Amino acid sequence: MELLNALQWRYATKKMNGSRVPEEKITAILEAARLAPTSSGLQPFEVIVISNPELKQQLLPIAKNQQQIVDSSHVLVFAAWDDYTKERIEEVFDRTAKERNVPSESMDMYRNMLLGLYVGRSADENFAHTARQAYIAFGLAIAAAAELKVDATPMEGFDSKALDELLGLDKKGLKSVTLLPLGYRDADNDWLVNLPKVRMPKERFITEYK
Amino acid sequence: MELLNALQWRYATKKMNGSRVPEEKITAILEAARLAPTSSGLQPFEVIVISNPELKQQLLPIAKNQQQIVDSSHVLVFAAWDDYTKERIEEVFDRTAKERNVPSESMDMYRNMLLGLYVGRSADENFAHTARQAYIAFGLAIAAAAELKVDATPMEGFDSKALDELLGLDKKGLKSVTLLPLGYRDADNDWLVNLPKVRMPKERFITEYK
Repeated sequence: MELLNALQWRYATKKMNGSRVPEEKITAILEAARLAPTSSGLQPFEVIVISNPELKQQLLPIAKNQQQIVDSSHVLVFAAWDDYTKERIEEVFDRTAKERNVPSESMDMYRNMLLGLYVGRSADENFAHTARQAYIAFGLAIAAAAELKVDATPMEGFDSKALDELLGLDKKGLKSVTLLPLGYRDADNDWLVNLPKVRMPKERFITEYK
Repeated sequence: MELLNALQWRYATKKMNGSRVPEEKITAILEAARLAPTSSGLQPFEVIVISNPELKQQLLPIAKNQQQIVDSSHVLVFAAWDDYTKERIEEVFDRTAKERNVPSESMDMYRNMLLGLYVGRSADENFAHTARQAYIAFGLAIAAAAELKVDATPMEGFDSKALDELLGLDKKGLKSVTLLPLGYRDADNDWLVNLPKVRMPKERFITEYK
């Protein structure tokens, strides 16, 4: 099974060698994120792709000087909606009705249910929900990279407010939640590359009711 | 690429046919969840696997009577740690030191950094973080199921407090965050099976800085 092999192969790469990842692989990794399942199909996040060297340099201190930012080929930024709004939800329903060639009104019950559920809630509560959805896509992007033998370093350790300002995400109603530098391991200089992967034992992780 | 094919094939199955998923496939799906990358490798969640018919019946009203609960073969419950504690973090470091055959003290700096970061924080803030990690594994389990041509219905719509009581998760310091019924589609009776998958267009989803 390709996914399990990929998950065994991958590790949080600590040292990258600066080689470039081909565009078609970046495209496939982004496609996995775009196809990720999300609550009610709302896809409440976007992905920013940074390969520009100057911008990576500006990102470096914001990400605690983790060198994978500059030694990677591309850095993905997963940025979740800061809130659910009527406009954002309407956009999804309008697109869905159009692509499925059904009258928009045929989805009114579901649309109104979601508008009632989300638009009245606090931005904090909504962002907690949108961020979780972004993590589904984040996980699938990591898996896609691994299937393509592209290394990655999942990162939460960065100043999201500073990054949101740098990229103007705040003005777009987005909040960065994770980073994913993509590139290739520098196996000679990565302390983690040869250490065994450690996971919670199955009997500890799983409880079965048969 | 197997993952993209799987993500194209899958959909949130609305009607399942009651057929049983072989144990080896359930094992592989759970293994994808267990191998999921998580922040600092803490894996702050567990998975409960329910195939017991009586328990599924009890779960049904808790999950808004969504029939996939009982028409599925197995229901996975993803339950995140309700908080980070010293004991939980120590367990991970002790296991890692043992499996990597290094002195436990060699990891003290990292261990103390995490203890300082998490043990002082509110349970709410920590749970927000553990829940996000569980969503990475949730996404990978969905992808694994799809690679194995097992249908799944990602679900957030359930009464997590009632479920936590039913399964005694509250006593174990866990909070359920998502459900994943696994089974096989009843294609003749599923209104969603033949509708096109709709996603945000690439140019809307992705911003590039080259």
